[in-house]
Amino acid sequence: MKNILKPSIYWLFAFIPIAIFLERSGASAPLIFFSAAFSIIPIARLIGNSTEQLATYTGDAVGGLLNATFGNFPELIIAVIALKEGLHGMVLASLAGAILANLLLAMGVSFLVGGLKFYNQDYNANSVRVYSSMMMMAVISLTIPSGFHMLALEKAASENENMLNVYLAIVLLVGYISYLIFMIKTHPDFFRSEGEKQEEEHEERWSITRALVTLVIASVLAAFMSEVLVGAAEETGKVLGMSSVFIGVIFLAVVGGAAESISAISMAAKNKMDLSIGIALGSSIQIALFVAPMLVIMSTFVGPAQMNLTFPKGLIVALFLSVILAAMVAGDGRSNWYKGVQLIIVYLIMGMMLYFIPTM
Amino acid sequence: MKNILKPSIYWLFAFIPIAIFLERSGASAPLIFFSAAFSIIPIARLIGNSTEQLATYTGDAVGGLLNATFGNFPELIIAVIALKEGLHGMVLASLAGAILANLLLAMGVSFLVGGLKFYNQDYNANSVRVYSSMMMMAVISLTIPSGFHMLALEKAASENENMLNVYLAIVLLVGYISYLIFMIKTHPDFFRSEGEKQEEEHEERWSITRALVTLVIASVLAAFMSEVLVGAAEETGKVLGMSSVFIGVIFLAVVGGAAESISAISMAAKNKMDLSIGIALGSSIQIALFVAPMLVIMSTFVGPAQMNLTFPKGLIVALFLSVILAAMVAGDGRSNWYKGVQLIIVYLIMGMMLYFIPTM
Amino acid sequence: MKNILKPSIYWLFAFIPIAIFLERSGASAPLIFFSAAFSIIPIARLIGNSTEQLATYTGDAVGGLLNATFGNFPELIIAVIALKEGLHGMVLASLAGAILANLLLAMGVSFLVGGLKFYNQDYNANSVRVYSSMMMMAVISLTIPSGFHMLALEKAASENENMLNVYLAIVLLVGYISYLIFMIKTHPDFFRSEGEKQEEEHEERWSITRALVTLVIASVLAAFMSEVLVGAAEETGKVLGMSSVFIGVIFLAVVGGAAESISAISMAAKNKMDLSIGIALGSSIQIALFVAPMLVIMSTFVGPAQMNLTFPKGLIVALFLSVILAAMVAGDGRSNWYKGVQLIIVYLIMGMMLYFIPTM
Repeated sequence: MKNILKPSIYWLFAFIPIAIFLERSGASAPLIFFSAAFSIIPIARLIGNSTEQLATYTGDAVGGLLNATFGNFPELIIAVIALKEGLHGMVLASLAGAILANLLLAMGVSFLVGGLKFYNQDYNANSVRVYSSMMMMAVISLTIPSGFHMLALEKAASENENMLNVYLAIVLLVGYISYLIFMIKTHPDFFRSEGEKQEEEHEERWSITRALVTLVIASVLAAFMSEVLVGAAEETGKVLGMSSVFIGVIFLAVVGGAAESISAISMAAKNKMDLSIGIALGSSIQIALFVAPMLVIMSTFVGPAQMNLTFPKGLIVALFLSVILAAMVAGDGRSNWYKGVQLIIVYLIMGMMLYFIPTM
Repeated sequence: MKNILKPSIYWLFAFIPIAIFLERSGASAPLIFFSAAFSIIPIARLIGNSTEQLATYTGDAVGGLLNATFGNFPELIIAVIALKEGLHGMVLASLAGAILANLLLAMGVSFLVGGLKFYNQDYNANSVRVYSSMMMMAVISLTIPSGFHMLALEKAASENENMLNVYLAIVLLVGYISYLIFMIKTHPDFFRSEGEKQEEEHEERWSITRALVTLVIASVLAAFMSEVLVGAAEETGKVLGMSSVFIGVIFLAVVGGAAESISAISMAAKNKMDLSIGIALGSSIQIALFVAPMLVIMSTFVGPAQMNLTFPKGLIVALFLSVILAAMVAGDGRSNWYKGVQLIIVYLIMGMMLYFIPTM
Repeated sequence: MKNILKPSIYWLFAFIPIAIFLERSGASAPLIFFSAAFSIIPIARLIGNSTEQLATYTGDAVGGLLNATFGNFPELIIAVIALKEGLHGMVLASLAGAILANLLLAMGVSFLVGGLKFYNQDYNANSVRVYSSMMMMAVISLTIPSGFHMLALEKAASENENMLNVYLAIVLLVGYISYLIFMIKTHPDFFRSEGEKQEEEHEERWSITRALVTLVIASVLAAFMSEVLVGAAEETGKVLGMSSVFIGVIFLAVVGGAAESISAISMAAKNKMDLSIGIALGSSIQIALFVAPMLVIMSTFVGPAQMNLTFPKGLIVALFLSVILAAMVAGDGRSNWYKGVQLIIVYLIMGMMLYFIPTM
């Protein structure tokens, strides 16, 4: 690399040794937590890059599948670690938070940054409509078990509840597989960019060995740093006076998706809105349709008890409103800076509410 | 008929004697229930056909009126019978269920079946927008009395509640009449199909006497078989371990609308999406704006007590979400198989929830 | 003025002395209330006219700012007077009611009146989309504190609640300022009318002195008559058997916005739909993003206690549904009479519910 001094998120690798040193030396939890958080951002980028490189060796279909599946690998790793610790509330919060962060924060900042450079930015409204209705479907599905939990009061319900959650997870995964078939196989043109072809910039092509080895190493690193991160999460919440839901919704969610969000924003700055929106919305969909049901199913093997999708009431409302708002704001295929401001404001306000309601 | 051996829903007429025989011989309730259910499907089709034939003898306006009014006659008959028995909960469930079945199941299967044969299917997005906003208006209106019921805690409220429901029914019927005027009189072009004129296939024209006699006989038959159906409904629920809400939402609703749903799906398979969507969405609107308020008003004459529109909370949420989802999915005037899958998944998931929550 | 006998809302000035006389002579509260209400309508129009006249002396940007800021001055005056009396519930109800009245009643009557004269009326769908997503953002934001109020049960929460409301008000005002920048500075073309330029009719141009003096006198008059109006409001509710929420949602809200609503309707009758919709939607947005947060901040100086944005549950649901409905109905850039009927029906039904639920 010639421009090694260029600002790059790879500089954040320095936080790997820092976080480990802090943890060993018994530093305060927030220090450990935020060091680990920063260290995960470049690891996530590395996972993304190696997946993309791997995809160049496969056909388009397998490549699309690889990208889709590994796209939210960091979120999945963090969540599995937290699952093992039995931190179900925090996992659910981080899932909801990741969706909110993608729909409102990543898309909002993308619109704002892009809109400050370009008067209007056009993109493929078709794909946004597909994403929106999918998010709506996903959010409806995700919140059904919470409705069950609130309405079903009988004792005998608990076993039913576990069954309902597993069935639901299976239905969601069927929805996810259909989505992959639709996106990769039958209707790839739906997701094609408006106007000229947007070539992705590959600085260099990696060998298949390098891609595979990088992917494995990065995944192990991610798991290791997630362990540090999750280990310090609860204590961090206590020290900073934040609820574990807030830690999950804001910090875990933003950390897990940071690498992707940065990509979305930098694409918007280059006026590649279709890629930008594809990253932000695609990521929310994968969390809702793939990561969430996978975690329910994995929780029956890993960890102390099955994790059911019982989100707190406030998060459910937040999810619905965000999806409807995002569909309204992004649905017409043209963005500007003010749309970005709208999305960011709603994210801020929801964050504010979550901060002030420790028991939500 | 030359092709008498062709698969036809008229074969289901065989279930009329079967159901009657089973009822007389004291068979188990589910057997009676499902036989009666199957027997109603061809009767409903017969009502539809004779209405269409009658309409060929009247002007366009009266014909449209006839079609609109008799379109949900089977649902109305089943509901009136259940009303007489005082099964208010089941009637409300079947109304909500009929809307869900039309918006999600009938439209979903239509999109899926059509989408498997055709890459994309285009239709008139204008009419879908009219339907969507009307459904939204109707669902908002329908759920107001439930809000009243939840929020009004005083004893003195009960008389007010009855008045509110009757007033509301009148307002909804005014909305329905305006809709008919809009659709038939002032803006018929809004509902016209995209592209070439879609001729409906009339195998043969009936005499006016034949049409009238068929309509009368089919209606009497429908009433008779509905009596059998409703009589076995509660017992069927007990035997199969299903709540009466579930029986109403899923079985009564699907039975009453089956003939229409089959038409919608077969239109989609012939790439006549405008007709297909018109049947599915038009039917939901008639249930919300015509059948529901008619039943409230009729309940003050028929049956033990006035039926108020107090839906269970879960059904209200389900109705709202379905309308918003359907508007999002169908609003752009172009369907594909994956949109169908999305709608069907949400129907399945809602059904799952209703199955698992007996007390909802 | 040549046509002094033409029907004009300025005739309503006669209600100023009538209301004052009635109040002094100790007439019954409803008489005083409605006289004062009628008297405020022409005063509001006068404020609007003098602001417009003033704006002709400033640049476009300052003019836009003036119009935007003074657009809801009557509502603001009435609310501040009620705030001083500590009538927080009534103020909140009048804010929500003003939004509902603009979105449903003013827009509905505009669509109906315009649609009875013209078959279809086209307008700029872009601006409606901006308005809709802004209303959604605003309503989400406005209802967050209510969510907090419902969910936060601890005693210690009350101080947090006040802080949350002030922070929220600041965020909303930032949103409002961004909106002004967007509308006036960076993207004025978004709000431009379809088709030919629509010249506004200025009967005559006022001198700057006349405009300023009129504005000051009208504002003082508005404050004075608002005092009379608000003073009689609670007693009027008692006499007529209406809750103070109902008085606020329906009467105060309609009175404050009557002048603007009349403008919106008369623009629709002249087929100037862009102006009509701009008035109705623009006014809702100013109430949500400017009047509401201003009142929260002012309540910390004026009146007995800080007013927090804790709307009753029923009003929150009404606000959300109205915004979604309005977005659905108005979103396609073409109106007709039936769309008007839909909006009016929902307004009627919501009013009915509020009337029948005194405790909501």
